[in-house]
Amino acid sequence: MIKIAVDAMGGDYAPAEIVKGVEEARDRYPELTFLLFGIEDQVVPLIQNQERINFVATTEVIAMGDEPVKAMRDKQDSSMVRAAQAVKDGEADALFSAGNTGALLSSAIFIVGRIKGVDRPALATAIPAVDAKNGHNQFIFMDLGANAESKPAHLYQYGILGSFYASHMLGYDNPTVRLLNNGAEEDKGDEVHKEAHQLMKQSSDFNFLGNVEARELLEGTADVVVADGFSGNAALKSMEGTALVILGQLKKAIMNGGLRGKLGALMLKPALKKLKGQLDFNNQGGAVVLGVNAPVVKTHGSAKATAVANTMGQIKMMVEQNLVPDTAAFIAENKDKLKVKKSAN
Amino acid sequence: MIKIAVDAMGGDYAPAEIVKGVEEARDRYPELTFLLFGIEDQVVPLIQNQERINFVATTEVIAMGDEPVKAMRDKQDSSMVRAAQAVKDGEADALFSAGNTGALLSSAIFIVGRIKGVDRPALATAIPAVDAKNGHNQFIFMDLGANAESKPAHLYQYGILGSFYASHMLGYDNPTVRLLNNGAEEDKGDEVHKEAHQLMKQSSDFNFLGNVEARELLEGTADVVVADGFSGNAALKSMEGTALVILGQLKKAIMNGGLRGKLGALMLKPALKKLKGQLDFNNQGGAVVLGVNAPVVKTHGSAKATAVANTMGQIKMMVEQNLVPDTAAFIAENKDKLKVKKSAN
Repeated sequence: MIKIAVDAMGGDYAPAEIVKGVEEARDRYPELTFLLFGIEDQVVPLIQNQERINFVATTEVIAMGDEPVKAMRDKQDSSMVRAAQAVKDGEADALFSAGNTGALLSSAIFIVGRIKGVDRPALATAIPAVDAKNGHNQFIFMDLGANAESKPAHLYQYGILGSFYASHMLGYDNPTVRLLNNGAEEDKGDEVHKEAHQLMKQSSDFNFLGNVEARELLEGTADVVVADGFSGNAALKSMEGTALVILGQLKKAIMNGGLRGKLGALMLKPALKKLKGQLDFNNQGGAVVLGVNAPVVKTHGSAKATAVANTMGQIKMMVEQNLVPDTAAFIAENKDKLKVKKSAN
Repeated sequence: MIKIAVDAMGGDYAPAEIVKGVEEARDRYPELTFLLFGIEDQVVPLIQNQERINFVATTEVIAMGDEPVKAMRDKQDSSMVRAAQAVKDGEADALFSAGNTGALLSSAIFIVGRIKGVDRPALATAIPAVDAKNGHNQFIFMDLGANAESKPAHLYQYGILGSFYASHMLGYDNPTVRLLNNGAEEDKGDEVHKEAHQLMKQSSDFNFLGNVEARELLEGTADVVVADGFSGNAALKSMEGTALVILGQLKKAIMNGGLRGKLGALMLKPALKKLKGQLDFNNQGGAVVLGVNAPVVKTHGSAKATAVANTMGQIKMMVEQNLVPDTAAFIAENKDKLKVKKSAN
């Protein structure tokens, strides 16, 4: 049995859609059990069927706008902190939340704890790749903003963490890795990216193919794209924002196109629907904190029950595929080599 | 009369489309004259009518793939370097190129020269804003990658340079400025962005509204968005790449949609065309080097004659609007105050 600690209070539709999603996942995956943390009188009445769901009462809630580290430290009896504590104490195998991303990151790093030898856990997600030459329709993009500042050795470690995630979760053999940089040539970028490129180029720890520019990201030029958290965050949000604006403008153009526009839209409906699905970044599963001692997954704040249940499926796979132990074992075996990289910069 | 020094050899369709564009601009704008630099036997036969076009023979060409600073230093008789030199020597008022962006930047900074008091000239462009609340349908986005590394004082200066560009070229009164950061709150980002935010917040030099996240960029939340060159480049290229992929997938979906898809597309044609125009980042004019002693404008490498002529119109407006002298005068008047900001970090 796999036990998932669930923060029932985080997310725009919490706790209703979280509880509903947990029940959907319970019915879908017989190997899952849940430890649900939340405010008793808000959560318990929502549970239809307690099979494989254990409820733990907590008294506090970390809000979306709370300052992350402070919230984690001050709200010791919050649903998120208690859920993280359960993972640390071995009472659960993984942590789920749809709440405050920064607080979840802090809980993952300071409570669940870093894998020994990992300096900076990072936030990763799968992104749709469109017509990729390697035939892979998703790639792993990280760091999405866990770390505002990264050193070359951190970017190097992201390459290892991302490779394990891509091989274990997407089934890619010897995943290819690229570094997000503002030019294809190895001398491009600031000092951090130039040095990171050199470290990666000499890597025997993963399959490095060189730099990638943000313009080519969605074309899926690699199975893993490593970015510093600041520009990774900017690139991801630019892509999301652009996709939303275009689809919104398309809809508006159709609406303003009179009968002709509406008829055209009706005929194009299947094509438009397919396109929208392809470009739905939230459809690709939750964002994962890589480099900590257990699977920690953040699903989108606006996630409804089915998205919650899908994320539980993702967590189940992370546990079954042995992602964290395999990553930890590799880093332990190579710790001397990785230390050298660190002292080099 | 306004005299523009033209690098006739830079760009994918140079020199043919550059020369054609210059002639189109000459016919369109009676106040423009051109100093055309290029390889004699390649350029001269293309000129249909020499009215207000003076040709200067050069022997070298800076290629798209050349290492920028090295190319500028080594190829002293290249069309780009000679054109820049003409601006420096007062023989021309502005510099145009569709060639190697990095080499043009270097030529702008080291040959045309920085405005006194400007530490880091930056690359700026107008971006379409969609349904902006302030009613403005474009905003200025900078730095797009002139500087891989920026200090807080540099970001602060971009705010000044961008404000002058927005007021002079887009006609926005007291332009609003935001800082691209990975969160809306003032404590977000790395040290550079936190300090830059504090400098800008206390600014009396421009109208600062706070941070903007990349996701909201296209919504036009400000008239000027200031970014460090690394993440500004990543955000711009992510937006361009996403727009291209979506429009490409839409086309493909229509093609694969059978008769129904094609009929629908036919009916939606006006709406789709409008959308494409709205999202064409290259339609918004060339990228401008701000902070140097004359207008220096880089149009897209794939620009054809009409795009070249449009860019000449943009340069004409920069000169007529007195952009560079007004910017320089403001910076000279405030140099003591700006020095203080610099020493603070």
